[in-house]
Amino acid sequence: MGAAQSFRAMCDREKNTNIRVSLPAVCIVWQISMIILFGIFVRYDKESDAHWIETNPKNMSKIENDFYFRYPSFQDVHVMIFVGFGFLMTFLKRYSFGGVGFNFLIAAFGLQWALLMQGWFHHLGDDGKISINVYSMINADFCVAGCLIAYGALLGKVSPVQLMVLTLFGVTLFAVEEYIILNLIYAKDAGGSMVIHTFGAYYGLAISWMLYRPNLDQSSRLQGSVYHSDVFAMIGTLFLWMFWPSFNSAITEHGDGQHRAAINTYLSLASTVLTAVAVSSVYQKHGKLDMVHIQNATLAGGVAVGTAAEFMLMPYGSLIVGFCCGILSTLGYIYITPFLEKYLKIQDTCGIHNLHAMPGVIGGIVGAITAAAASESVYGTEGIKLFKFPPAQQGGHQAGALCVALCFGIGGGILVGAILRLPIWGDPADDNCFDDESYWEVPEEEESIPAVMQYNNHMRNKDVCVSVLFMGQQI
Amino acid sequence: MGAAQSFRAMCDREKNTNIRVSLPAVCIVWQISMIILFGIFVRYDKESDAHWIETNPKNMSKIENDFYFRYPSFQDVHVMIFVGFGFLMTFLKRYSFGGVGFNFLIAAFGLQWALLMQGWFHHLGDDGKISINVYSMINADFCVAGCLIAYGALLGKVSPVQLMVLTLFGVTLFAVEEYIILNLIYAKDAGGSMVIHTFGAYYGLAISWMLYRPNLDQSSRLQGSVYHSDVFAMIGTLFLWMFWPSFNSAITEHGDGQHRAAINTYLSLASTVLTAVAVSSVYQKHGKLDMVHIQNATLAGGVAVGTAAEFMLMPYGSLIVGFCCGILSTLGYIYITPFLEKYLKIQDTCGIHNLHAMPGVIGGIVGAITAAAASESVYGTEGIKLFKFPPAQQGGHQAGALCVALCFGIGGGILVGAILRLPIWGDPADDNCFDDESYWEVPEEEESIPAVMQYNNHMRNKDVCVSVLFMGQQI
Amino acid sequence: MGAAQSFRAMCDREKNTNIRVSLPAVCIVWQISMIILFGIFVRYDKESDAHWIETNPKNMSKIENDFYFRYPSFQDVHVMIFVGFGFLMTFLKRYSFGGVGFNFLIAAFGLQWALLMQGWFHHLGDDGKISINVYSMINADFCVAGCLIAYGALLGKVSPVQLMVLTLFGVTLFAVEEYIILNLIYAKDAGGSMVIHTFGAYYGLAISWMLYRPNLDQSSRLQGSVYHSDVFAMIGTLFLWMFWPSFNSAITEHGDGQHRAAINTYLSLASTVLTAVAVSSVYQKHGKLDMVHIQNATLAGGVAVGTAAEFMLMPYGSLIVGFCCGILSTLGYIYITPFLEKYLKIQDTCGIHNLHAMPGVIGGIVGAITAAAASESVYGTEGIKLFKFPPAQQGGHQAGALCVALCFGIGGGILVGAILRLPIWGDPADDNCFDDESYWEVPEEEESIPAVMQYNNHMRNKDVCVSVLFMGQQI
Repeated sequence: MGAAQSFRAMCDREKNTNIRVSLPAVCIVWQISMIILFGIFVRYDKESDAHWIETNPKNMSKIENDFYFRYPSFQDVHVMIFVGFGFLMTFLKRYSFGGVGFNFLIAAFGLQWALLMQGWFHHLGDDGKISINVYSMINADFCVAGCLIAYGALLGKVSPVQLMVLTLFGVTLFAVEEYIILNLIYAKDAGGSMVIHTFGAYYGLAISWMLYRPNLDQSSRLQGSVYHSDVFAMIGTLFLWMFWPSFNSAITEHGDGQHRAAINTYLSLASTVLTAVAVSSVYQKHGKLDMVHIQNATLAGGVAVGTAAEFMLMPYGSLIVGFCCGILSTLGYIYITPFLEKYLKIQDTCGIHNLHAMPGVIGGIVGAITAAAASESVYGTEGIKLFKFPPAQQGGHQAGALCVALCFGIGGGILVGAILRLPIWGDPADDNCFDDESYWEVPEEEESIPAVMQYNNHMRNKDVCVSVLFMGQQI
Repeated sequence: MGAAQSFRAMCDREKNTNIRVSLPAVCIVWQISMIILFGIFVRYDKESDAHWIETNPKNMSKIENDFYFRYPSFQDVHVMIFVGFGFLMTFLKRYSFGGVGFNFLIAAFGLQWALLMQGWFHHLGDDGKISINVYSMINADFCVAGCLIAYGALLGKVSPVQLMVLTLFGVTLFAVEEYIILNLIYAKDAGGSMVIHTFGAYYGLAISWMLYRPNLDQSSRLQGSVYHSDVFAMIGTLFLWMFWPSFNSAITEHGDGQHRAAINTYLSLASTVLTAVAVSSVYQKHGKLDMVHIQNATLAGGVAVGTAAEFMLMPYGSLIVGFCCGILSTLGYIYITPFLEKYLKIQDTCGIHNLHAMPGVIGGIVGAITAAAASESVYGTEGIKLFKFPPAQQGGHQAGALCVALCFGIGGGILVGAILRLPIWGDPADDNCFDDESYWEVPEEEESIPAVMQYNNHMRNKDVCVSVLFMGQQI
Repeated sequence: MGAAQSFRAMCDREKNTNIRVSLPAVCIVWQISMIILFGIFVRYDKESDAHWIETNPKNMSKIENDFYFRYPSFQDVHVMIFVGFGFLMTFLKRYSFGGVGFNFLIAAFGLQWALLMQGWFHHLGDDGKISINVYSMINADFCVAGCLIAYGALLGKVSPVQLMVLTLFGVTLFAVEEYIILNLIYAKDAGGSMVIHTFGAYYGLAISWMLYRPNLDQSSRLQGSVYHSDVFAMIGTLFLWMFWPSFNSAITEHGDGQHRAAINTYLSLASTVLTAVAVSSVYQKHGKLDMVHIQNATLAGGVAVGTAAEFMLMPYGSLIVGFCCGILSTLGYIYITPFLEKYLKIQDTCGIHNLHAMPGVIGGIVGAITAAAASESVYGTEGIKLFKFPPAQQGGHQAGALCVALCFGIGGGILVGAILRLPIWGDPADDNCFDDESYWEVPEEEESIPAVMQYNNHMRNKDVCVSVLFMGQQI
């Protein structure tokens, strides 16, 4: 055991993952800042204020409060953010605490900052106050999603303090990018293929590129999954998959807009599952399926249909989008992720390039094409007003928006990556990545004792000669 | 270890679970077919089309779009299909990937085919187009549920290609059966006791009978659960249990219909838990509870109240239905499942006979009795119009519907079972059932190493001298 | 193995956990009683009765049925009760079945009894019948929550029969306490900081005090978690955290009331996460996080904002409440729980004093202050009618309500604890606590065999000599 001991001692020397000062300090300082800024700026919206009984027009039913249009979708989105993203990142054998726990931490921080940033850009009243409502809460969750996607590329390789910094800057960049895309360029992006997924993924990939670890294979023993961690990850996958129709429809127009967005997403995702399974099977010996593909690539269709979900994409159009993305995303896991790591020095733990970056770009392109192909006969004279510009021009604006998302993602990622390279953040050593021991009190695995004892009993029962000897003091 | 090696080699010789050609081919061909058929047939419904702003009557609020009546229920049903059924089938120690993963695959395929089949029968417009909306999505999920129930009987014994075939035929049969029951016989079956559960269960049992494996005990080492797989299965149980009120109320009448169906199901399920626990306890030494009963029999009340959920069953009536089904279903696991396997050659992995078949039949009978007992004083002059015929006659129609469901289930299952006996589908050998190794890349359980090391460290820390010796061939 | 065998034999002698008569008897007798009482008393409410089509005012849309205002919230609350509380209690290494399973059992029983008790106090019509609807179902779930909180203190130390008794009395006490607080004192408590959390927590703590086990350290080997059980518990944590806005808004006023309660809770919970993480980190070597804190203390903000959630607490007010409770609750786990056990003889397995008792009291105080500070300028002339009395007086009533909740909790707990000390309930011996073996058929851990075999194979594959010798001090 001498070797193991010296190995551990070596790790302890090399790494400096002590975050006992920095993490609490960051949490407390930022939370106090939030309280002060909320005190100055944030108020209830008209529909969530106690005056609503008076200000509400008399002929309007209480059920027409925006709460009832959007709250079920909000809760679904909320589940995607915390359980969906959180459990999807529990697949590593010894980083499940970090996957679900840090996801929880940065989402809870990010949504407060997002309410402020998005409020300043979008909901600032004449009195200098931000009005919040259920719509704001959905948008805050959306904004956080961008940062959680970025976390996927960095899973296991960064400290929680770095994640807080990533989130602070990520939310800030997101709000600016979103303002440019939605309010200056007047592009549409209900499900955030560009605003959320393209931005978030390239943001994370650029940071990962900046934080490249040439000796990461020293942690290779911890980079895989175990049986039960793969089942945990399926919880994340399924809640993302099931609630994606709510994600893409949450902030679309009341009525047919939400209805259509949900249908399109439902169909696209169903189609993706089939092609992801097909490609996963065809690339393995005996046609065996790979859990990584099932956990991730099956979701690509939801990403790619985001921008166009509220358009008249038509049911078969949604199926086609899902069809292509299931294939492309799975091929990405097989070919592109190794390529990125080997040649472009981008280490992408969860494969967000395949799940968010490529499908996000496709989603932007699909949105541009669909918008450019819009016509009054398909949308009706009222429905076409969904777009601010005539079809061809709108298509151009959509394409422009995609470029903005890409630029903000890559540029912002390089900037923030440079900050995160500073040696002050308590990130783990190369041989200590993907290990919850660095940042968590991990319970001792006493389970091994009954397991070995039961093994013994079992074998004895079967009259098999195996000796497992437990000896009290001597041999 | 020589024995283990030759055992493995033997397995490899016997089994031919290579699905590298068949599974991808089936997935791609069927998905392309779906795209073509959707392109020809499927369009948005009036309420999900961009023209709705114009076609929507002026005095109708946007909140009266059917989306807002049904979308929360749809999402609950969606969770039941993918997380509920999926995780309920993770209970086997080494078939959790197959349980949740193949459930995911066939549900995603089946819902597309269901939209088409149900569309042709129910929603075909004068222009030859199928209109889809949130109601269609719920019905597609319902239709898929029938096939997932059938999968429960076959869990661990069939290949994914067989499951795709089972689903293709299952959905087809379902749509025909549903059309006969609802549109020709004019029976009511909101929660699908007959249409979904009775049909699905007997379909699966008949297939299992056709695929009887006399030497299945060769896999008996893998037929049980382990501690954590039982906890995973409880995720499925609870999401099914909690959302069953949404299942039974999802497609009932707006207003009091949905309201009443949710209440009845809520009560019936609560009652079932108590009696399932009672029977489970009384049949075990020391009154210990059996997880199989808790995971499954507690759900029987939801099945049995399906048909009558929207009727004026009365709260105590719901409790009585749940009371009986909790007892019957648990007794089924104790007595009937072994009986079926031994004498009728039906191997029912998940015990769907106890959870779906018997309660489904009871549900049909309860529905017939309740409908026959309906009166204008109880339902009101408007409420009684729920039924197409006078009470006694309606009761007869309900009973007839139950027979149709039984016939379609058994007949269809024998037919499809015959097809699935062809030796081309890549199903596992008898000694290789219930093993994810056949169709999945299963991660190496390296966890055992740190576990043993930790054990060692742990014991050393306590200054206890323990020697654990593992010896392969000697001693 | 002799020592282990004699140890087991000794356990079997000492404990008398045979509940083969008592548990089934209690379940069946109570369920039959429920059926009889429901038959006598319980009927559908006007909005869930088939007559609604006639009684419904003509100008009212079907979407204005209370079902559509509250059903999504109801389902979220339902998930919190069964998955949230259930999985939060799976954290123990060998009591996950008991955690989630007994939670399921007592919740299913309790909600039936709650419908009756709350019905007699609140919804009894002139005809002597109780009318139930979606609002009743939410309240029944709320009532059950009080008992589940109490279970948290007793987890692993009581038999299911004791839990049934606890629930029967708990629901009864709850209904009386709730009636006094809401209908006699006219206090407001939408999210139940006082009515649910304060009552439930002190009820459980008082019972735990009455059932003090001086030799509980004999089970200390089972009191911790293992890696995967901690991940399971995070499922419970997250579903509680995500759906708490629905919990606190479920029974508030239609429109702005529900809207505002959801916003306040969302913000308070976000704030709590940051401070819980900060305190957890600062109290550990190297700043490592403790899963116990992340699983529990992050929820304290939802408890503490319960009473005031529907008030004009303002967004920053919510953040402040969450901020304080995250700190206090985490400190509670570090200092107060050991103190309670050592000096007050209160053994609190899940730390409900930190998660429910203290935050519940704080919630009551926050509610009293906020109510006392209410003004017409903030609430509007209509909005202020939320309160029955002028602000200062309402504040006094709120404070009085808190005292009632405390008295009922402590007094009721001592009373019920005395009953539960009778030696007839089949509770486990001190050295047998926290062990599912007492009440469940636990599967043999055959997983150990493949694990050891794979380990063996693995080592051979690497050409490493297989003898793995673990030696403490010698050899």
